[in-house]
Amino acid sequence: MTASGPGSAVVVGAGLIGTSVALALRAVGTQVWLSDADPAAEQLAADMGAGESVRAAGQAGGPADIAVLAMPPAAVAPELAAAQQRGVARCYTDVASVKQLPLAAARALGCDLTSFVPGHPLSGRERSGPAAARADLFLGRPWVICPVEENSAAAVTAVAALAQACGGQPVLLSAADHDRYVALVSHVPHLVAAAVAAGLEHAPPEALQLAGQGIRDVTRIAAGSPDMWAQILSANAGPVGELLAEVARELDAAAAGLGVLAGGNDDARKVLTDLLERGRAGVGRLPGKRGGPAPEYAMVQVVIPDRPGELARLFQVVGAAGVNIEDVDIEHSPGLPVGVAELWVRPESVDAVTGVLAAGGWPVRR
Amino acid sequence: MTASGPGSAVVVGAGLIGTSVALALRAVGTQVWLSDADPAAEQLAADMGAGESVRAAGQAGGPADIAVLAMPPAAVAPELAAAQQRGVARCYTDVASVKQLPLAAARALGCDLTSFVPGHPLSGRERSGPAAARADLFLGRPWVICPVEENSAAAVTAVAALAQACGGQPVLLSAADHDRYVALVSHVPHLVAAAVAAGLEHAPPEALQLAGQGIRDVTRIAAGSPDMWAQILSANAGPVGELLAEVARELDAAAAGLGVLAGGNDDARKVLTDLLERGRAGVGRLPGKRGGPAPEYAMVQVVIPDRPGELARLFQVVGAAGVNIEDVDIEHSPGLPVGVAELWVRPESVDAVTGVLAAGGWPVRR
Repeated sequence: MTASGPGSAVVVGAGLIGTSVALALRAVGTQVWLSDADPAAEQLAADMGAGESVRAAGQAGGPADIAVLAMPPAAVAPELAAAQQRGVARCYTDVASVKQLPLAAARALGCDLTSFVPGHPLSGRERSGPAAARADLFLGRPWVICPVEENSAAAVTAVAALAQACGGQPVLLSAADHDRYVALVSHVPHLVAAAVAAGLEHAPPEALQLAGQGIRDVTRIAAGSPDMWAQILSANAGPVGELLAEVARELDAAAAGLGVLAGGNDDARKVLTDLLERGRAGVGRLPGKRGGPAPEYAMVQVVIPDRPGELARLFQVVGAAGVNIEDVDIEHSPGLPVGVAELWVRPESVDAVTGVLAAGGWPVRR
Repeated sequence: MTASGPGSAVVVGAGLIGTSVALALRAVGTQVWLSDADPAAEQLAADMGAGESVRAAGQAGGPADIAVLAMPPAAVAPELAAAQQRGVARCYTDVASVKQLPLAAARALGCDLTSFVPGHPLSGRERSGPAAARADLFLGRPWVICPVEENSAAAVTAVAALAQACGGQPVLLSAADHDRYVALVSHVPHLVAAAVAAGLEHAPPEALQLAGQGIRDVTRIAAGSPDMWAQILSANAGPVGELLAEVARELDAAAAGLGVLAGGNDDARKVLTDLLERGRAGVGRLPGKRGGPAPEYAMVQVVIPDRPGELARLFQVVGAAGVNIEDVDIEHSPGLPVGVAELWVRPESVDAVTGVLAAGGWPVRR
């Protein structure tokens, strides 16, 4: 659903996130004022159609419905204090990747917390700056909102509506939970990716030419801006440090196990298998990913000719036998006249399904 | 180029790699015999069109031109000894991900090393088994060949021709170099991915719903088979253990730095920035990836209307000014009537290019 946006908004900070918020708001008809410490960034965002440059206009209009502070975590509170002083908007949010630090700083600076609702859209790219901005950056992505006790209900509602107007899914969390969760799913992976990538810095070209999709995927996020990430990680130092120390311990134990294995003692293999199995289980918990077969189903593989109607015929035969297919995958090597259908069924149905398929002339493997 | 394949081949091991080799060889007309300890896997591969099942035929024909041993590293040497005993083929190769261990074991078992040339196609999927096989699995990918002193020239040539017939790019390396290189670009990243993924095993669902593309990419390879990977890693324990210990040290130092930062001492930020910068430099060295701007060029951003001919007009104006555009990127947010062209030029050309573009009416940012 596309929600209606605020009537007017001020976006402070015309980087990737700020300009993307502005573009998304413009798309739902919000009047947007843009400002950035860098006049060229502010003007580029305006030229892209993200709103009106405050600098070019001389001045924003009266208080806007909402102000979005799009800047690194440590910059949020001082900017909030200044903006509230000038009465820039009726309510305020930020989009920084860390939530406890800006909130604590805002309290310390005596900001008005009835109107400031911290937020964090979980979207990003390796690129930064207004040129990389996209109106659809937040589409279908979580947008965390961390209401605090002092917040007015109106301010919380306005920030949730902003998130929806940008296409995001509002998720309510405490600032402490948010910071621990992003440490786990974003900040620690970033540092780990950087550590693996750092090992490539002086690698021989002959080694790099062997690189495949695996290491490209593992290291992709390490291409992000070191300055920006140092700011984010520093602002969430406690939770990130604790979790990262755990990962370092895991890897150190695995390295020690490998040392024992290299010495010819095979007993140490268990530490590897254990880590690999927990890793596979962890990947399987990521929403929208299948982490290996669901344990309650069994798989039957059937070779099928690659022509229209074959799959329908197969489903028909299996259905007629009273067997419910819980899930299906098709594997097909390009250029081959056949594919392999993988049918997931209840274990008690394996005999029945194998029987009817074999009787129907399909090569089948349980 | 598609090289002509061997006239006949025996593929021992009908898993992902073995069946993919067989499919690729069938596509260039090679007669292929398939065998696998698991009769159902052997039959499935045969039903997919990967060749003739040795079991179904009762017996393979006379010695084939080449035998491909497609099995875990530790199984290669015993299989090689048995196959050479039976005179299965005129020359032999394997496809295991580790090269020193099978080679040393083959020597120890007294195998004939004139006819055995170790190999490793750098291709894979998270899935395993014959159903996941693809004829194009090796297309354009490096296929490492590790000739040894005893090899006959004919055997080395035959294995290189096999790699090319499968669409791979032969790369000659010593077994020791191979093992260190794959430790760096494949085995260590796999364990690191597993360690990050293991942290998700007991994570709260609210944390997992915040997961984005970053952690999905970092952990993707950890979905691979724990058994198979434990075998690979154990077989390359020395090189992997050493490099992994380095990564663990990096992360431990970063965790310690974060602890100091959390205590309020900002001096520790340097350890983070340093790691992030080395990581970014490392990603930039991966072939085919641009790791940030080439340092010798400067970038000029221009907002351009999203309509045919605009880019041509822009290039014409810049070209007429005598400026060479070294590289160009286009950023375009869907639904917007404009995009941003990023022009990379020599630093001494920035003034000229900015001038002619501004004069031509384009909004420009240097």
